[in-house]
Amino acid sequence: MGSPETATSLPVILLHRPPELDSSPIIPRLKDFYRVIDPHEESDSDPSAQTLFRSVRLLLCLARPPVTSDVLDRYPSLELVIATSAGIDHIDLAECRRRGIKVTGNAGVFSDDVADYAVGLLIDVLRRVSEADRFLRAGLWPVKGEFPLGSRVGGKRVGIVGLGSIGMRVSKRLEAFGCVVAYKSRKINPNVSYPYYADILELASWSDILILSCSSTKETYHIVDKGVMKALGKKGIIINIGRGALIDEEELVRMLSSGEIGGAGLDVFENEPEVPKQLFEMENVVLSPHRAVLTPESFAELQKVIMHNLEAFFSNKPLMGELDIE
Amino acid sequence: MGSPETATSLPVILLHRPPELDSSPIIPRLKDFYRVIDPHEESDSDPSAQTLFRSVRLLLCLARPPVTSDVLDRYPSLELVIATSAGIDHIDLAECRRRGIKVTGNAGVFSDDVADYAVGLLIDVLRRVSEADRFLRAGLWPVKGEFPLGSRVGGKRVGIVGLGSIGMRVSKRLEAFGCVVAYKSRKINPNVSYPYYADILELASWSDILILSCSSTKETYHIVDKGVMKALGKKGIIINIGRGALIDEEELVRMLSSGEIGGAGLDVFENEPEVPKQLFEMENVVLSPHRAVLTPESFAELQKVIMHNLEAFFSNKPLMGELDIE
Repeated sequence: MGSPETATSLPVILLHRPPELDSSPIIPRLKDFYRVIDPHEESDSDPSAQTLFRSVRLLLCLARPPVTSDVLDRYPSLELVIATSAGIDHIDLAECRRRGIKVTGNAGVFSDDVADYAVGLLIDVLRRVSEADRFLRAGLWPVKGEFPLGSRVGGKRVGIVGLGSIGMRVSKRLEAFGCVVAYKSRKINPNVSYPYYADILELASWSDILILSCSSTKETYHIVDKGVMKALGKKGIIINIGRGALIDEEELVRMLSSGEIGGAGLDVFENEPEVPKQLFEMENVVLSPHRAVLTPESFAELQKVIMHNLEAFFSNKPLMGELDIE
Repeated sequence: MGSPETATSLPVILLHRPPELDSSPIIPRLKDFYRVIDPHEESDSDPSAQTLFRSVRLLLCLARPPVTSDVLDRYPSLELVIATSAGIDHIDLAECRRRGIKVTGNAGVFSDDVADYAVGLLIDVLRRVSEADRFLRAGLWPVKGEFPLGSRVGGKRVGIVGLGSIGMRVSKRLEAFGCVVAYKSRKINPNVSYPYYADILELASWSDILILSCSSTKETYHIVDKGVMKALGKKGIIINIGRGALIDEEELVRMLSSGEIGGAGLDVFENEPEVPKQLFEMENVVLSPHRAVLTPESFAELQKVIMHNLEAFFSNKPLMGELDIE
């Protein structure tokens, strides 16, 4: 914890992290300006640690450790939780609201990266890019001759599920390709002219491609189920850059396998890092290890947001990316 | 050649095709309206065939058979050559001009498909999509843990070599991703505000990514050579959806292998379908079997253009996609 003279004069922040995440490039930077308390490095029986825990006002999450009411009970003076991940499904927002604790998110720094990746997966599945790359690397071009044609991107009807910061960026990109966009969201977005579908079944029936860019909540658990996939149809494609829990994965694998839907680009899965092995043999899917969200560039932007919010909090200035949890 | 009564009353078109291309979905449609002469099915010693060859006014190329002065000599009454491929490097345009023969191209029906694919390759290489897909299919996610991050698309400086129908569509798409575009072309395009570089070395020095969307001509042969790749630099990426001959492929393979350039997305190669085997082992390349150009949708559009131009020619109406070969 550094030398007591200097360390105790600095504002205190509590680092909340999964046990396995024992280093992050931001920690050394933090320690120049803050006294960083890491419960994994403190003894629970140390009375001075307990005093610190009871007095700490700010909790900084690294990665996605659960922020439950039990966790919040340990730090009764909390005023702010800083989330640093793309999603915030690890934080009990209702409990934060009840206790009057503010929550800041990633301030949209990941949204461009995720949107880029969603479009990349869409082009890849439609135009069979990864499949073509496998075909070449297996030495099949001179042997088998012409590789089958993919399908045009332009003119496709794309249903976006969740037209938030990411979904909006996906739609902006897809317009440049000549795709036709419609969406389902918690509420109608008055700033866009895309058709709105309250019912995901109707959106799926209309769509050639469904892109999942909504939050993972109790309400969106398995929002893409057998019925939605049936509505999407045999040529339909699903792109998931949201969360694995948005899709009934077992049903997805079965319907891809039987040809009841056409293809999928999946960056997220229900039990990461485990991925259903049947997918590994399929040509009509593109699989990715939860990498849509992050590039070194967005990580650098995120660090700026974190440093800004820490300083803003301790000097009563406006926060960036504060979530509306009312 | 059908029944003589009906066949001889139809306008005559000469099918010019590579010997191995003995079927095409357009041929049966053609035969409903035209007398289709296929030299591969005629005997050279048949005097009536010779008479037909001398009188034929229109030559329809299927795929990319060479249209040399020798070929043109065989058909002295030619007035129009209809090309149906994306590139037209198989046609001796100077010779056509000299003889007063018009040439029509694909009227841009492939441009959107090629541009989509170029952007798909760019996202794929930058964000490591195909590489991530290999990682998952090899079962490495649970074993090796987090897959390395790719690089952000937005903010990248993209040098487009050839700002024609395809290059313009690439730039329009990349603007939606927040890329910064500059270009080299035969001449300055007065309709765009992108910086113009007359010298490809200077363009490469400025660029994070070079996209090759120019024609393959004597002037552009190996336009990307060792010097250009050195100027592009260690992190530089090359996307080639033009023609294999645009790049010194041997040098490309060597510089990718030594890390002197960062990566490549290659849809075309110098000796297709042969691809340098060293590329198959590289993680920083995405390889594709000359598939950027075509989807079933663009092929259907092309058929419409061909049928239109046949009818227009025989009824003296304006042609679509006539090339400016003056």
